[in-house]
Amino acid sequence: MSTRIAFVGGTGPEGLGLAMRFARAGNMVYIGSRSEERAAEAVAFVKEKVPDGDVFGGLNLEGAEKAEVIFITVPSDAHESTLEELAEAINDKIVVDVVVPMVFDKDGPRAIDLEEGSAAQQAGRIASEAKIISAFHHLDGKELQKIDRPVQGDVLVCGDHNGAKKKVMDLVEQIEWVRALDAGPLSNARYLENWTVVLMHLNKLYKAHAGVRITGI
Amino acid sequence: MSTRIAFVGGTGPEGLGLAMRFARAGNMVYIGSRSEERAAEAVAFVKEKVPDGDVFGGLNLEGAEKAEVIFITVPSDAHESTLEELAEAINDKIVVDVVVPMVFDKDGPRAIDLEEGSAAQQAGRIASEAKIISAFHHLDGKELQKIDRPVQGDVLVCGDHNGAKKKVMDLVEQIEWVRALDAGPLSNARYLENWTVVLMHLNKLYKAHAGVRITGI
Repeated sequence: MSTRIAFVGGTGPEGLGLAMRFARAGNMVYIGSRSEERAAEAVAFVKEKVPDGDVFGGLNLEGAEKAEVIFITVPSDAHESTLEELAEAINDKIVVDVVVPMVFDKDGPRAIDLEEGSAAQQAGRIASEAKIISAFHHLDGKELQKIDRPVQGDVLVCGDHNGAKKKVMDLVEQIEWVRALDAGPLSNARYLENWTVVLMHLNKLYKAHAGVRITGI
Repeated sequence: MSTRIAFVGGTGPEGLGLAMRFARAGNMVYIGSRSEERAAEAVAFVKEKVPDGDVFGGLNLEGAEKAEVIFITVPSDAHESTLEELAEAINDKIVVDVVVPMVFDKDGPRAIDLEEGSAAQQAGRIASEAKIISAFHHLDGKELQKIDRPVQGDVLVCGDHNGAKKKVMDLVEQIEWVRALDAGPLSNARYLENWTVVLMHLNKLYKAHAGVRITGI
């Protein structure tokens, strides 16, 4: 079933990669940006890889208004302000928060502790009617963009709204070879977000594009 | 090469499982406990599975004094006091901290935030001469005890002493099928520890013994 999906801050590697995969799976994809020009460039880039895709773009606000499911793929430092701008438009929709709160210091990337516990919980504080789901932290954006190759790895999904979680898990499994796993309540979002920092260290040490697979399930 | 390994609090599932695997790989294994009787029982249990193993046991303190590499496998709430008791005996040895600081509440297991950042960093504060390595959080204790079956999964190893890290990574790879990965500095220990909480949620939701495998490396 086709879903109207918007990417808020969809011009980065993760947003582009997911947009390609979801467009190819037959969904309507809207790439949002703070700049209409950059959104248009991103749409053109995605349509090159997925010529038949239903792909549109424009300002973040318009995406949040039009979509059923809103992915937050902005840089960490724009997370809070972006949510504040869009909370009204988001209303009670499904929000998939992909953001990892972090900074870089001498040891490499490091997680930032947010008062709310995680980026996803911060989104929930701001867009308080929305159904917040935390997911898609561990698929590499560049690998996602290699559209003709399957992506290795699991997507762990956590949240407190079971219907929304199921909907997002169904979206996950539209991506070939990728498995969705229910990782419990939204209070687990911090652990999922922070695991990305580990993957980034591994990427650097092993010159890799690391992902995660859960064994034993 | 054979290593003298002690398990402090080695009578739980994780300590027993690792003791079996390391004994089978030809190391000298000491199972420590607060109770000599429980240590003796644990030694007997391990020797049942690994009859030829060099397996001994007794009080934690004796283990810390005799071993080259000291695994901390106590329950979370005994972590700080145990390290305080043993810091002098540990001195500048290699400590492998396996402990995950957590509690159980209505949503299931939840990580506790320690002032030092992680159990491993707390160990480093207390045993300040020791070479602290954080590792072995994600291998299931019960699966480890099925001694004739290979264990699925990677062991992520972090720490600030490169020699000690290499030694521990070599130990990891003595366990059949298990791969050691360098997960960077000790400041990443919190992310490794907290990931265990995710695995515990998955275990409950999927009635599984979940582990982790890094893809793309």
